[in-house]
Amino acid sequence: MSDKPLILVTNDDGISAPGIRNLIAAVKHLGDVVIVAPDSPQSAMGHAVTISKPLRLERTPIYEPLLAYQCSGTPADCVKIAVDKVLHRKPDLLVSGINHGSNSSINILYSGTMSAAVEGAIEGIPSVGFSLCDFSIDADFSLAGKIAGNVAENILKNGLPQGVLLNVNIPKIGEEDFKGVKICRQAWAKWEEDFDERKDPTGKSYYWLTGKFVNFDKGEDTDEWALANGFASIVPVQFDLTAHNAISYLHQWTINP
Amino acid sequence: MSDKPLILVTNDDGISAPGIRNLIAAVKHLGDVVIVAPDSPQSAMGHAVTISKPLRLERTPIYEPLLAYQCSGTPADCVKIAVDKVLHRKPDLLVSGINHGSNSSINILYSGTMSAAVEGAIEGIPSVGFSLCDFSIDADFSLAGKIAGNVAENILKNGLPQGVLLNVNIPKIGEEDFKGVKICRQAWAKWEEDFDERKDPTGKSYYWLTGKFVNFDKGEDTDEWALANGFASIVPVQFDLTAHNAISYLHQWTINP
Repeated sequence: MSDKPLILVTNDDGISAPGIRNLIAAVKHLGDVVIVAPDSPQSAMGHAVTISKPLRLERTPIYEPLLAYQCSGTPADCVKIAVDKVLHRKPDLLVSGINHGSNSSINILYSGTMSAAVEGAIEGIPSVGFSLCDFSIDADFSLAGKIAGNVAENILKNGLPQGVLLNVNIPKIGEEDFKGVKICRQAWAKWEEDFDERKDPTGKSYYWLTGKFVNFDKGEDTDEWALANGFASIVPVQFDLTAHNAISYLHQWTINP
Repeated sequence: MSDKPLILVTNDDGISAPGIRNLIAAVKHLGDVVIVAPDSPQSAMGHAVTISKPLRLERTPIYEPLLAYQCSGTPADCVKIAVDKVLHRKPDLLVSGINHGSNSSINILYSGTMSAAVEGAIEGIPSVGFSLCDFSIDADFSLAGKIAGNVAENILKNGLPQGVLLNVNIPKIGEEDFKGVKICRQAWAKWEEDFDERKDPTGKSYYWLTGKFVNFDKGEDTDEWALANGFASIVPVQFDLTAHNAISYLHQWTINP
């Protein structure tokens, strides 16, 4: 390896997805790129890790001359095994994505793309996840790639505060309509579930998870507002989940048995 | 249903685990209890949800006369399908656990037990997850059960601030040595991974995730400190992951392509 920055690339859509191919193209001029990504789609895996079965890790020529491995685990597994068994040190940057579909607002919790970035931050690696608000296999990643390259360059140059990673979402929009990048907070929004009940050939019920995304947040400083108004959103994210404001409230309780 | 509070019970160790049995016993005097829990162990599933295959939901007599359903999905799936297809309304309380093993500090991110509680809070349900720091199938849940009952009673009486849930961990300790319940923040700690590489019968490598839990946090207000010193820990948790302190720092960057 050279003395250029070491950049780990991963995702949750699987190592052959167009999104990761575009992300590699967007960052490869910035350092030595190594890819360790799932061997199959891992969307909505959240921060799952694999503890009840072993993992496979196989070198693949898919991005030669770049070094690439496919792993049978989740995105969080990929980050862990990349550091321990492939790189043998912490990389200088972790980039995850580009996800096919939004990971704004509450979707960060369900997202494999973002859990890889969260895992990187826990490991002390400057980390960022990118998502394009377009589920299509034929999505146009040109704007998203440019933003990814710029954000990656900024992180390498300026660093990130300890315990902070970035959640970057890019709207499905033509470059001529793009308004710029906006630093945001996570919008208060949720999925309103509606399970679609069907009958199998034996007459027993099964259920598909469907739902409608509802934004309750009227603020103009949120990621949802930005994406709806032609901006790309960048939300700084932390993995300390403590609701510090609620500690004094709980001190008033009588809990001891 | 009566006019008593409606209490949803779930977990990640599966519907027949001793932990959920003890949790049901601890809260059933507080309201009408309905159980919707995974039909198989779902530890370390994080906030995974099932989108690439359908779910099964089956009524089971295991806790009769209480109404109980087992679901083929993750803990987060269980909460979603319970609200939409079993209860047909938001319950007044969601209790998850009692997990066999700690979910303190960073473990909250990997925990299926806690992801169920986080999902509950997203849905607007007062929610709490309980974990006993003992992986054994023969663990003694008597102290944990008392604490779970008291915390559940407090939530029903006092409510929780919007967007806040509780992460409760109980030490593996005799009641005579128990020091009480302590309100805490999430400790800064992590797993240092060490993948155990083995060879399969054909000579190909496979890897088991192992690791050592390391606490970098010297504070005496953390969950790790409490558990190491004979206390049960209660951490108020939020699902707004925005690192608000980092927003002004990011405004200094030049990112637009």
